[in-house]
Amino acid sequence: MNSELYPARRVAEAAGAARAAGLDVLLLTPGPDLRYVTGYDAMQLERLTCLVVPADGEPFLVVPRLELAAAQASPAGNTGLEIVAWEERDDPFRIIKNRVGTAGNAGLSDHMWAMSVFKFRDSLGAARLTVATEAMRSLRIRKSAAEVAALREAGAAIDRVHARVPQWLRPGFTERAVGARIAEAILAEGHAAVDFVIVGSGPNAASPHHELSDRVISEGDVVVVDIGGTMPSGYCSDCTRVYSVGEPPAEFSRYYEVLARAQETGCQSVRPGASAESVDAATRSVIEAAGYGEWFIHRTGHGIGLETHEDPYIVAGNETLLEPGMAFSVEPGIYPGAHGARIEDIVVCTEGGFERLNHATRELVIL
Amino acid sequence: MNSELYPARRVAEAAGAARAAGLDVLLLTPGPDLRYVTGYDAMQLERLTCLVVPADGEPFLVVPRLELAAAQASPAGNTGLEIVAWEERDDPFRIIKNRVGTAGNAGLSDHMWAMSVFKFRDSLGAARLTVATEAMRSLRIRKSAAEVAALREAGAAIDRVHARVPQWLRPGFTERAVGARIAEAILAEGHAAVDFVIVGSGPNAASPHHELSDRVISEGDVVVVDIGGTMPSGYCSDCTRVYSVGEPPAEFSRYYEVLARAQETGCQSVRPGASAESVDAATRSVIEAAGYGEWFIHRTGHGIGLETHEDPYIVAGNETLLEPGMAFSVEPGIYPGAHGARIEDIVVCTEGGFERLNHATRELVIL
Repeated sequence: MNSELYPARRVAEAAGAARAAGLDVLLLTPGPDLRYVTGYDAMQLERLTCLVVPADGEPFLVVPRLELAAAQASPAGNTGLEIVAWEERDDPFRIIKNRVGTAGNAGLSDHMWAMSVFKFRDSLGAARLTVATEAMRSLRIRKSAAEVAALREAGAAIDRVHARVPQWLRPGFTERAVGARIAEAILAEGHAAVDFVIVGSGPNAASPHHELSDRVISEGDVVVVDIGGTMPSGYCSDCTRVYSVGEPPAEFSRYYEVLARAQETGCQSVRPGASAESVDAATRSVIEAAGYGEWFIHRTGHGIGLETHEDPYIVAGNETLLEPGMAFSVEPGIYPGAHGARIEDIVVCTEGGFERLNHATRELVIL
Repeated sequence: MNSELYPARRVAEAAGAARAAGLDVLLLTPGPDLRYVTGYDAMQLERLTCLVVPADGEPFLVVPRLELAAAQASPAGNTGLEIVAWEERDDPFRIIKNRVGTAGNAGLSDHMWAMSVFKFRDSLGAARLTVATEAMRSLRIRKSAAEVAALREAGAAIDRVHARVPQWLRPGFTERAVGARIAEAILAEGHAAVDFVIVGSGPNAASPHHELSDRVISEGDVVVVDIGGTMPSGYCSDCTRVYSVGEPPAEFSRYYEVLARAQETGCQSVRPGASAESVDAATRSVIEAAGYGEWFIHRTGHGIGLETHEDPYIVAGNETLLEPGMAFSVEPGIYPGAHGARIEDIVVCTEGGFERLNHATRELVIL
């Protein structure tokens, strides 16, 4: 991946963020934090890979010898970062302990596996272990122009998948069969990985995180399709649209119009200085005013970047003030039970307001 | 998924395994342990989902309200297991603390995220936290007949993908382009997810965990293709074959013959009562005797089931005695640098010896 997307300066920025968060060292295992700082898309395995970033001191990347060539070939290999390979019989936790000495506060990547957390607890002795979430959040929450471009590319890719969904949503097919076609299309349209495929038909549309079932799609079904993947860049897509196989129930059409208005209102409320919770409130108020408030049972959205779900969360209680470069979903839903609907776009806060990254029609697609 | 693959008795078996391991409670978040015990294929999210299995007492599954319908629709919904839904403003860690009281020893699933580990540390107070690996290993390491059947189905699916690889391995294509076609085929041949796609051509074949690059494949390249996915059943495939685009280098042909013999010898050494390390030794001895020992830089294999890498590991120092139902890879490699090779099959230990689950030819495929 290019050095604009993963600039070498991030290792130093991570050290600065650690200092600001009162941490003596960051310990980042494979996952979005490691990729953000180094560009290295390492596999999370039982063998330890860990980037060690002291608040003051030289950072280094510990990798199993087996992964050395992959680490060197990654952007991490071009940053001057020292790479320390450990052999099959070495104890990588001891290697790290011997180099960092006594760390008062160690911040671990929040997705680190428990098996590694406990090994650090045992090897680092007196150190106070905590998550590096706040330190990393301060860096990751505002996307650079290159990151926004990567998210835009992800949005265009998932839009192309939605454009193909109508050809598979036919009566007689199961959700699982449709989902399999969608998963293939997510890859064919440029993603490197399929993250999730939700095809919720009929009453399953009313379960926001329903995935796929053997339910057969039939005439008159409303179908919620919520799909996303990870691009080769590392950045994620996530977009929900609603399809109707034939004419939808009359009750459905009434609340779908409310939902579309709420989603539009939510997007329009995005601007620098507005709080995350104000976007939730703006969206929710439209649904509540129409009398559907009790059926909107989740927050309005989540941040997106190297993870599908990350800061900032668009939820009551989150007073974070939006800034240009913050990217997140606006995805209200109404789920009365016999059917349901959700409309989701990724939006980015800009100097002038917001930019949508999804452009497939938000009108109900009647097949 | 069917109740033969995920029998309801496993919750009680997990409690028994906890007692045997000296744990007072198991805390299992989404991942292979949770799926093994309940059949519930939950998404790992920032919102806590956790199966709580006291060594003595009533087990219960804590889920965000948003996931309630999905949990109920999963096999976990048919087992009589109590499901406790928490609302967006509840603290699920407090809910668990209030129900389990003072736990002396709590065993956490080894893939639990650090963010949840630390919240349990803070909420459970005096409890000693550790990983549930040993308790879960005692259950998961011997596959039932239904699990072996699921692994056999996974093996057949990845064999079908390998059968299609020759059509994409053409001079002028990049590893990445070939990998994209393979990923689509992994889904098309029946997997629910692509876990990894390694296409290592030329010198990249000598890096065992190289994934994909923009290197253009050309005449005379040897290409290592190591691929795997997860089936709808939850069980994984993993198979490596080697292809040669035109005639391979003479030196390569010499050690490839040794490698194939080592892999065969390793498989033939699998039988009840043989140790895991003896399979590694049997495989390695063939390569060492031929003078290539220094280029076989990794263990011989890893267990496989609901995870691609799990117990038993086929490695020096692992004295585990093989038993019928244990499933693992036998995958020696030789990596001199300019090129390299690895041959991998999944095998299951049977009463009479072993069964291979991959049947694509192990001879070098010359294209």
